[in-house]
Amino acid sequence: MKLQVTQENLNKALSSVARVASTRSTLPILSNVLLKTVNNRLSVSATNLDIAVTHYIGSKVVKEGSITIPARLIQDLISNMPSGVIDLNLDDNKLHINSRMYKSVMNGVSSEDFPVMPAIEKGQTITLPAASLKQSLSQVVIAASSDETRPILTGVYFNSFNKNLYIVATDSYRLAEKLVTPTDQETNILVPASAISDLLRIIGDYSGEVAITYNDQQVLFAAGDIELTARLIDGKYPDYRQLIPKKFTTTISLPKNDLNNITKVSALFARESAGSITINTSEENQQISIHSIASQLGENTATAEAKVAGDGVVTMNSRYLLEALNVLTGDNVDVKFNGKLEPIVLSSKESSSSYTHIIMPLKS
Amino acid sequence: MKLQVTQENLNKALSSVARVASTRSTLPILSNVLLKTVNNRLSVSATNLDIAVTHYIGSKVVKEGSITIPARLIQDLISNMPSGVIDLNLDDNKLHINSRMYKSVMNGVSSEDFPVMPAIEKGQTITLPAASLKQSLSQVVIAASSDETRPILTGVYFNSFNKNLYIVATDSYRLAEKLVTPTDQETNILVPASAISDLLRIIGDYSGEVAITYNDQQVLFAAGDIELTARLIDGKYPDYRQLIPKKFTTTISLPKNDLNNITKVSALFARESAGSITINTSEENQQISIHSIASQLGENTATAEAKVAGDGVVTMNSRYLLEALNVLTGDNVDVKFNGKLEPIVLSSKESSSSYTHIIMPLKS
Repeated sequence: MKLQVTQENLNKALSSVARVASTRSTLPILSNVLLKTVNNRLSVSATNLDIAVTHYIGSKVVKEGSITIPARLIQDLISNMPSGVIDLNLDDNKLHINSRMYKSVMNGVSSEDFPVMPAIEKGQTITLPAASLKQSLSQVVIAASSDETRPILTGVYFNSFNKNLYIVATDSYRLAEKLVTPTDQETNILVPASAISDLLRIIGDYSGEVAITYNDQQVLFAAGDIELTARLIDGKYPDYRQLIPKKFTTTISLPKNDLNNITKVSALFARESAGSITINTSEENQQISIHSIASQLGENTATAEAKVAGDGVVTMNSRYLLEALNVLTGDNVDVKFNGKLEPIVLSSKESSSSYTHIIMPLKS
Repeated sequence: MKLQVTQENLNKALSSVARVASTRSTLPILSNVLLKTVNNRLSVSATNLDIAVTHYIGSKVVKEGSITIPARLIQDLISNMPSGVIDLNLDDNKLHINSRMYKSVMNGVSSEDFPVMPAIEKGQTITLPAASLKQSLSQVVIAASSDETRPILTGVYFNSFNKNLYIVATDSYRLAEKLVTPTDQETNILVPASAISDLLRIIGDYSGEVAITYNDQQVLFAAGDIELTARLIDGKYPDYRQLIPKKFTTTISLPKNDLNNITKVSALFARESAGSITINTSEENQQISIHSIASQLGENTATAEAKVAGDGVVTMNSRYLLEALNVLTGDNVDVKFNGKLEPIVLSSKESSSSYTHIIMPLKS
């Protein structure tokens, strides 16, 4: 293998893929990236067996070939090199990386041992603009569980319902659902939340279209020069739609920043009580107040003006409320609930028809 | 105690002092800050017994008094409150903290139990502009040791010599010395580096004069509304002046950024060898090159153009070199050494008479 690339392109590709490589795997080659010439391009790939990412960059290929080399070292090296042309020259599993003032040699491992995910056969494809896909995914993925003992809840569920495509995630304490697009396709796939997080990081500054191709085993997100493939999670997703309340005894509307501010202050006093804060609404005063108690240290009541219909009291985890407010769009937020025992529903007028966030109450 | 302060002032004072309070002490009251009315001001103080910091702020005092309250909680609370007037009202060791929309109560501990450092008696004083003091201290403090088994090396040594005040620090692997100001006073004090680090943080945006008052036990840095008092370290500082070489067989001069860049890249390959990098100079090519080896992974040679007088080879720790370059002023750096066994001296034309940084070589 012998080729030239620019430092800028190689650096960009390595920053996309290198984080997927892991030094903690029992399979040492997974801490390497695969460099491979493909026609007049260089493909840069990494995988952790569940997820594989490939970034293609332009290259002047003099001699075809492939090699795997330590991901962290090559990423750190290239990111610290000055911009300009870099020569890559493979000689007996040693990769020579040369620019005008820098000469490095890295010991590679043959690419024959590098695990490659199979191509997706008989898949169907949905294409979406990157901007709206990114917003939808980041609004939903925060509600996924990181508890590996219940693998189904560690996924983001893409499902079609009444001619619409929805994505949803829940860790059983909260649930986020987003209507993504109208569709005629029947869709029913469960994508690992970790793959979604990697995707969001990788396509952060990509503004074109993303093609999502899937069968019942794998999904491929293709965004320009970047491809992310993930194994699907196997299993039946809970029938979550029945959990979403439709009628409410208390509804509140207020500026999102106001609710965020009083929740943050209340959360400071809730550190010892697992984030437990209690919301009180007053229709007479048109106010919402949040009360929290730090048993040894003191207590706090924070108040904000709000449009209130119906007095009510409900207790919830302040962290879940703050994380939900962080992904809600629009300047105002609607909070709706039915007393102390039923789920609290958050939405905003600007997105009320397409995004719903539910938080389970805490006992108080 | 009953008074009013602005959120802005109280927040500023708490951010100065709260980090000195520690929750890890065996004396629980040290995790609190002391609030105390002093005429028409509020003093906000914290101490870890070695260092004490007090920040005075303007206040409308209705009733005098004092109390200690949990440092972290009050800092987090005030920093999250909106700007404007805050009422502080002490009632039976409970401090009520009220603004228009927030009502908090914090359980305090009587100020009688709060340890206070004695005032400095029979001290002498040096006054310096904050800007130059900050620069001098930050250039020197990085060379102090954090190894508590040799307490003398954990200090920054203020000493007078030939009618000049110098500050110096060394961890025995490197040494930094700065000529601060001409003086007629005899000075010989050893200030804990941790106190210097706190001072640098606290007076970060202060631009007036700093008065340094000391006797043989304590030092007080007074900067406007802020006071930091520290216990001095007891013991005789090593006679370091004899360690600084005066003549050199190799001298190099190059842009600081160029040396920084090739050192950073070389350091990537030196992770397994405790940062060991080897500098080679070539008078014929007017070049400096740095070579480093990662035994399993590969090796690197990085080169830069330089004014070179005398061929030479020396090995050193890349981290020490990078940290020294980070505090050197000026666009160019001079590197001087005598073969492989004697200390390397770094300086810059702009500050050559006032700042000297020495790094001990590694065996190669």
